[in-house]
Amino acid sequence: MPEIMKGVNAAVLTPMNKDLTPDLGRMADHCRWLLDNGCDGLGILGTSGEAQSFSVRERMAILEGMEKAGIPMSKAMPGTGAAAYVDTTELTRHAVDLGASGTLVLPPFYLKGVSDDGIFAAFDKIIEGVGSSDLRIYLYHFPQMSGVPLSLDLVERLAAAFPNIVVGAKDSSGDVSNMLGMVKIPGFAVFPGSEAAFLEVLQAGGAGCITAGSNLCMEMCQRLYTAWTTRGEVDEEAQRIIVGVRNVISSYPLWPGLKALMARHSGHSDWENIRPTLMPLDDASRAEIYAAFDEIGYEMPSL
Amino acid sequence: MPEIMKGVNAAVLTPMNKDLTPDLGRMADHCRWLLDNGCDGLGILGTSGEAQSFSVRERMAILEGMEKAGIPMSKAMPGTGAAAYVDTTELTRHAVDLGASGTLVLPPFYLKGVSDDGIFAAFDKIIEGVGSSDLRIYLYHFPQMSGVPLSLDLVERLAAAFPNIVVGAKDSSGDVSNMLGMVKIPGFAVFPGSEAAFLEVLQAGGAGCITAGSNLCMEMCQRLYTAWTTRGEVDEEAQRIIVGVRNVISSYPLWPGLKALMARHSGHSDWENIRPTLMPLDDASRAEIYAAFDEIGYEMPSL
Repeated sequence: MPEIMKGVNAAVLTPMNKDLTPDLGRMADHCRWLLDNGCDGLGILGTSGEAQSFSVRERMAILEGMEKAGIPMSKAMPGTGAAAYVDTTELTRHAVDLGASGTLVLPPFYLKGVSDDGIFAAFDKIIEGVGSSDLRIYLYHFPQMSGVPLSLDLVERLAAAFPNIVVGAKDSSGDVSNMLGMVKIPGFAVFPGSEAAFLEVLQAGGAGCITAGSNLCMEMCQRLYTAWTTRGEVDEEAQRIIVGVRNVISSYPLWPGLKALMARHSGHSDWENIRPTLMPLDDASRAEIYAAFDEIGYEMPSL
Repeated sequence: MPEIMKGVNAAVLTPMNKDLTPDLGRMADHCRWLLDNGCDGLGILGTSGEAQSFSVRERMAILEGMEKAGIPMSKAMPGTGAAAYVDTTELTRHAVDLGASGTLVLPPFYLKGVSDDGIFAAFDKIIEGVGSSDLRIYLYHFPQMSGVPLSLDLVERLAAAFPNIVVGAKDSSGDVSNMLGMVKIPGFAVFPGSEAAFLEVLQAGGAGCITAGSNLCMEMCQRLYTAWTTRGEVDEEAQRIIVGVRNVISSYPLWPGLKALMARHSGHSDWENIRPTLMPLDDASRAEIYAAFDEIGYEMPSL
């Protein structure tokens, strides 16, 4: 029975070869580096992992590749949402069969303006289709990308209807009041999708974070998390750094910028490979983000 | 070499069994009925066909089912867009291999706020990946659902970069000025996605229509189209009816309403089966849409 996840989770980037196939070796190295340097868990194949730019088969192959490389699936929360609930069901069952601790699940996201009843019915189909007592769903609320918000009312309904299955949520909306509303659901594990909201939600009873910035500053996220959860203290230096990192990466196209920073840190320009509709940063933006990141005064852990 | 499509195209509904698998027999009958009663072509597996609620394999099986049932692929314009360009490439190649006259292609639609260069790069990948001189792409502009608008500037760029491949567009934005802008691109076939815009765009040089309402009033769409293209006349009665149908169906959840009207017309309640996040109409809405449709005073062709 998977435990409820908590702590610092990176929204793991997906490194690619020049032909834009996933580079599973580099990705496994990246996952290990994240776990070795402060991550409690791995949000593989979320938005930062470009999940929706891969086919269902590619997504399954990536997760299998991580499992075969020895990345502990007990620390993995792969994104398994898709436009079609049938694909979400297949991906979620596959992740559960591989032993993933949890799955991060977007609602079907092509059709907009759908009813809460319709979204509820889709999750009902997915849960029925997976049919496993090991299933743990973390709802993925990212209305800016999905265009299909998960209302607080709907989240409460799902948590109540599927106890021990719908156990938490990642909230990438940026709306802290929404996150604080979800924190009040008994036993519900809430993860902000941004460092900007991490501390406030943690102090209110949040479970941790699942963030893009944790690909870079996982050590500092862990310092902040540990100081608060073990000593009730705010690590001001860690907080300054993680908010600084967030401010820098959100001032540029987020995922190309993260990949550019990893390319520099690793010395491997292939880190910048990215699937369209995303594009690598242009030279000017790359130089700018490097300079802005350096101004934070934070050294990423060595590779 | 497929000819450029024109005339009246239904955005074909996808009938389903109770378990929400596609009912290929009923769908083939529906396609034949549409062609026998005024449709020049079939927009299979667009938004109205709930394409994004099916897996890639299901979408391929549906198109193959229509081909095996004798539906002429020379009149088919299947929707092949997906969230991931690799899926779009696979679906588009499959449709071309089956002999589809054209393909209706959404941009990758999960990531929002992407650049025109990024969308261009995705179409470049798709066209290169399909690699067929029989490929004809009709761009699908439906920003209310995709969240990824195809700007007029980008459409012009794609048409210029891929002559004889990017040959037209379906515009479901409802923005007639955008459609009239696309009509000015030399040789570009523009299809409004609504009866409300059909006549105005046709008069400006549009190629026809691809509409949900054509599932019900294809005869009247054809009367309007023929009167204008052969005699330069406006068939006022046909125009009154198709705009009336559009007004009725757009006052309720569009696809559940269309399916309810087909259920009544055919006497088969299974017509109302629909995949979540869409839901069948409730009893009150069903009664209302039936009454509103009857007030138009239009008899659908017999089955």
